[in-house]
Amino acid sequence: MIHLIDQRRLPQEVSIIPSISLKDNIDHIRTLAVRGAPAIGSFAAFSLALSIKRGEGSKTSYEMLLGSRPTAVDLKNCLDEVMTGFMKGGADEAVETAFSIYDGIIESCRKIGGTGASIIPDDARIMTHCNAGALATIDWGTALAPIRVKARAGGKPFVWVSETRPLLQGSRLTAWELLQEGIDHRIHVDGASGHIMSGGDVDLVITGADRICANGDFANKIGTMEKAILAREFDIPFYVAFPRTTLDLKCPSGKSIEIEERSGDEVAYSWKERVAPVNSKAINPAFDVTPAELVTGYITEDSVFSLAGFLEMYIKKAPL
Amino acid sequence: MIHLIDQRRLPQEVSIIPSISLKDNIDHIRTLAVRGAPAIGSFAAFSLALSIKRGEGSKTSYEMLLGSRPTAVDLKNCLDEVMTGFMKGGADEAVETAFSIYDGIIESCRKIGGTGASIIPDDARIMTHCNAGALATIDWGTALAPIRVKARAGGKPFVWVSETRPLLQGSRLTAWELLQEGIDHRIHVDGASGHIMSGGDVDLVITGADRICANGDFANKIGTMEKAILAREFDIPFYVAFPRTTLDLKCPSGKSIEIEERSGDEVAYSWKERVAPVNSKAINPAFDVTPAELVTGYITEDSVFSLAGFLEMYIKKAPL
Repeated sequence: MIHLIDQRRLPQEVSIIPSISLKDNIDHIRTLAVRGAPAIGSFAAFSLALSIKRGEGSKTSYEMLLGSRPTAVDLKNCLDEVMTGFMKGGADEAVETAFSIYDGIIESCRKIGGTGASIIPDDARIMTHCNAGALATIDWGTALAPIRVKARAGGKPFVWVSETRPLLQGSRLTAWELLQEGIDHRIHVDGASGHIMSGGDVDLVITGADRICANGDFANKIGTMEKAILAREFDIPFYVAFPRTTLDLKCPSGKSIEIEERSGDEVAYSWKERVAPVNSKAINPAFDVTPAELVTGYITEDSVFSLAGFLEMYIKKAPL
Repeated sequence: MIHLIDQRRLPQEVSIIPSISLKDNIDHIRTLAVRGAPAIGSFAAFSLALSIKRGEGSKTSYEMLLGSRPTAVDLKNCLDEVMTGFMKGGADEAVETAFSIYDGIIESCRKIGGTGASIIPDDARIMTHCNAGALATIDWGTALAPIRVKARAGGKPFVWVSETRPLLQGSRLTAWELLQEGIDHRIHVDGASGHIMSGGDVDLVITGADRICANGDFANKIGTMEKAILAREFDIPFYVAFPRTTLDLKCPSGKSIEIEERSGDEVAYSWKERVAPVNSKAINPAFDVTPAELVTGYITEDSVFSLAGFLEMYIKKAPL
């Protein structure tokens, strides 16, 4: 049995729910009870390992979990790893692998905190988008990890929290995490990002990622690409932070990324109340693609890389 | 007595409410029962004229109405005109002036529809922001007027409706107006604007304005400036539509515009339910400034102007 924080109920309630069946697990991923690329990957790894352990048919379970959400590649990478473990050493090895993925992601994020902290001035004002914190990654976070490390080391980082419509992962989850750490922050509507940047009140932008392509393009929560364009317009460095599980070396560029289209109701409803006319339709692309040319630096477990450095380290040297 | 549509209750309910006292009228402006720069101007003109007619003290009423919202200049322009009428011909002339402002705005917007329609291809896909329709301007609209004219002439315009957080004037009001006219549209979160533009699905952007400066910079609903930057990034023409009441010849540039800061609760609450943690603070700038260099064309009663043409027509030739 897996226990998880139900992220749909934060920040009003910290509710830890059990997840037993494969069907439950898939439902939790689809409905965003668990979300954030690395957290989805780890959760799916445990789900698959448990299915295998229960003798439920590894292939079917794998396919069903893989189909639960399309954009974040961590899901596939982690499921593949569990399958490899299973092939090598059976069900026990599959479970072992899931635990090792879990430990690996936490360790990666801790390291991302260390490498990323090096590019954050002591009293930096950092803008982020969506939630790329501990909730999204088991612990530490990706975009939030360097800020956390900086604050724990006595720095006074300030965070601009873009609310992140439609599901408000910024104002609900990132704000909640920052409160736990005592990090000063202000929430703003997504459309105010350019206005705040234009006022000279943002020193850098850091976001997480759902899939990093072999050319450095990456997918992340809808609204991320706009922030990268706006950051360049106002000469503000833009960083993306991610662990190895978010790399998709088989994806040549952002054009090949499938963007999940979620229900228009998430847009037509403002959180839980319908605000749009009943006969108006809404579109709801959940992610967008930020081209590599807009990225100042790639924050990884190993270091903070320029595009050239990132390609050298992760693409050219990657095992085929 | 003035009757107005309570825009806070749309689209769920078309509620027409009476407004009697000066205090009511100011409250309606502050709480956005009436909103949209020209509609605020006309409503304030009637409010002032009625106060004068009731012998309530023109100067105090003027000052109180002027202080109700800071950014849209139509408020001041229309109040000034009523005062001039009052000075010239007493209370009756003040009321006359208010009616003539009302007629003038409707006529201006009708003309904006005509001049603006000339730049819209028959099956154009137009992105807009906030609500610059009939609700914002008594009738026709500014940004929506050309689209309305185009549709009535048999064109098939399609509108991308940016929802416009925090108060959702896009998904609540613009979508409702487009439904009344049978104009096809899709609502999207503000942060998806760049993603939609990047897909090649937007032919032009048109927004309204709350204050046009003497150098062509203009203030409009928060999120407008981002759209102008994104439009330039993706080679999409960006237009702003407005009547003469929105001109502020005394404002040298966007830097001189006071941006209204509204309650952070509008952001912390998603429509009516609080979503942000209770201890997290939100900022809520209601407008931003779009620099003239990002504007492809100025749509007015007279024509569609380039920046040079706009400055020639409205600034250099303006009476001092």
